[in-house]
Amino acid sequence: MDRRSFIYYGGLSSIAGCSRNEQSSNTSLDNRTYNWRMATSWPPNFPGHGVSANRLANNIEELTGGRIKIEIFSAGELVPAFEVLDAVSRDTVHLAHSAPVYWRGKIPASLIYGGIPFGMTSDIFNSWLFHSDGLELWRKAYSSMDIIPFPAGNTGQQMGGWFNREINSLEDLSGLKMRIPGLGGEVMQKAGILPVNLPASEIFTALQTGAIDATEWVGPYNDMALGLQQVARYYYYPGWQEPSGQLELIVSRNAFNSLPPDLQKIIEIACFSENSYLLAEFNMRNQQALNTLKTEHKVDIRRFPNDVLEELKKHTNEILDELSNNDPLFKEIYESYNKFLGDISPWLEIIKS
Amino acid sequence: MDRRSFIYYGGLSSIAGCSRNEQSSNTSLDNRTYNWRMATSWPPNFPGHGVSANRLANNIEELTGGRIKIEIFSAGELVPAFEVLDAVSRDTVHLAHSAPVYWRGKIPASLIYGGIPFGMTSDIFNSWLFHSDGLELWRKAYSSMDIIPFPAGNTGQQMGGWFNREINSLEDLSGLKMRIPGLGGEVMQKAGILPVNLPASEIFTALQTGAIDATEWVGPYNDMALGLQQVARYYYYPGWQEPSGQLELIVSRNAFNSLPPDLQKIIEIACFSENSYLLAEFNMRNQQALNTLKTEHKVDIRRFPNDVLEELKKHTNEILDELSNNDPLFKEIYESYNKFLGDISPWLEIIKS
Repeated sequence: MDRRSFIYYGGLSSIAGCSRNEQSSNTSLDNRTYNWRMATSWPPNFPGHGVSANRLANNIEELTGGRIKIEIFSAGELVPAFEVLDAVSRDTVHLAHSAPVYWRGKIPASLIYGGIPFGMTSDIFNSWLFHSDGLELWRKAYSSMDIIPFPAGNTGQQMGGWFNREINSLEDLSGLKMRIPGLGGEVMQKAGILPVNLPASEIFTALQTGAIDATEWVGPYNDMALGLQQVARYYYYPGWQEPSGQLELIVSRNAFNSLPPDLQKIIEIACFSENSYLLAEFNMRNQQALNTLKTEHKVDIRRFPNDVLEELKKHTNEILDELSNNDPLFKEIYESYNKFLGDISPWLEIIKS
Repeated sequence: MDRRSFIYYGGLSSIAGCSRNEQSSNTSLDNRTYNWRMATSWPPNFPGHGVSANRLANNIEELTGGRIKIEIFSAGELVPAFEVLDAVSRDTVHLAHSAPVYWRGKIPASLIYGGIPFGMTSDIFNSWLFHSDGLELWRKAYSSMDIIPFPAGNTGQQMGGWFNREINSLEDLSGLKMRIPGLGGEVMQKAGILPVNLPASEIFTALQTGAIDATEWVGPYNDMALGLQQVARYYYYPGWQEPSGQLELIVSRNAFNSLPPDLQKIIEIACFSENSYLLAEFNMRNQQALNTLKTEHKVDIRRFPNDVLEELKKHTNEILDELSNNDPLFKEIYESYNKFLGDISPWLEIIKS
């Protein structure tokens, strides 16, 4: 590779005519190296999420010319999947790749960042994050744990779930035992469903044996990988419970503050880039999987009736109001989120028309 | 700032307990500096486009710890707006911030990247770019000019334009003189409109004096800045002529190849980050402007009738077929683009439902 320092000459002189210039630079760059440990909430090389964590770590290493080296630990290797927040907070690891939706117990407002039922899709969420006060409030929410969060990937819109009966009315939901965690599960409970949570590894068998009647997981790409098309007949949309599946890189404040400014900026920009890069991947892989589910597996893909969705939305608002009443920080952030979503709706109607 | 090199210790030892470690690094980073000149196709600090170019240049400087310094020249300072491609190709400047839609004369296939009528929106365009062969083909299209293109911002979905008469049928378009450049103009010509091109600075006066009957420009944010609401009554959507307004950073191959690998990667990732960062800004600013146009300026916002849109789409396909027949590279890229768009449509219907 031909490496040259280009020196600015005024006017229109061609840069191609610059002489090779290897003189010592006047930039005194900080060349110290940082060997960081990154926990994740994913199995090793988990499609989508885990591959994204690997790519982000590799990008950071390349961008820093090897000054930050990141060793990745999958869920359970150093710390269990749902304890990576604590591990970063305690400086057991320098950083972690995870999802805000897991931290409800410690930071209720994190639910807003993970993606809430009938909430923002990823494009509008980005507008709120970067060009309103969304990102600032996210950092405020995590600050008591000495953690700095960065948006670092989005799985896009989810599917509504797999059923073995048609859902033509609210009555058809009543009494079903469904794997649906988080806020979606609470909403479903109000609609008469018995929600349960199961890790990915147990969903297929539970549905096959009838231990559960229905399940949601992510979207076509991840759902097909679990084989859910073999044990359920109907695949419903929209993924009302999670219109945006936001992932995060959470970094120890101590570790982050130890970096020189250029490396801090690299972490931030690498995350912003990966944020949309992963979303673009999910949309591509979801369309491929959807096609396979339809043509090869003859899955019956259906839309929830509007009156069912309206009822679920009503329950969602009740639950979000309760969360606001119970936690001032949730209330502050949800008000910002909700106002932004309301304000931008007329523009969304135009661009999606 | 507390700067420390963290050294990896096995097990669960806390990083907070690491001792301060200032030993010389074993990373031999290339500290040479590069003073680069960037031309743009925008007036100084042009809202949206120009501000994005400034931010990208600043980010690159921060990310490289000052090793790449970029001096920005607005349109006409070093080279005219629509000659920046040639300037980069000739190494008169190292790089430029512009839009692919301007290069039809030299690289017809660039039209596909700028955004084509009834084509991909930015989210799906990203899927094609990053996770199919879109980006690779973009680089192929520019390679004969020794230029490497990077996606570096998107203005999102445009509006259809400003009119002083209602558009209820194709007949209402007939005979209108409208400022609408590029493919959109050619499509409109087939529909009976007389298309003209005018730079931003002349649009307001032309519409005010009746030199033109109608115009499109960008979207609410940029259109309101031109004051178009003062000289037209109806504001039509959708922006069928440009569902995605892609911007680009075009870099001289010689300049890019002169960089060490970490700086090359920084340019790439800084562009990918800015690509979605700007889109998020446009959506936010467009909603604000749309609201002002409606509430303060009482603009009458309307949707083109479906039969008008269908006719325009028919004309669009004819023109794209002609372009394919006239240029093998256009044909190759458009086939890839079109297949991807067709394949992903079922998934789009689900996530936009």
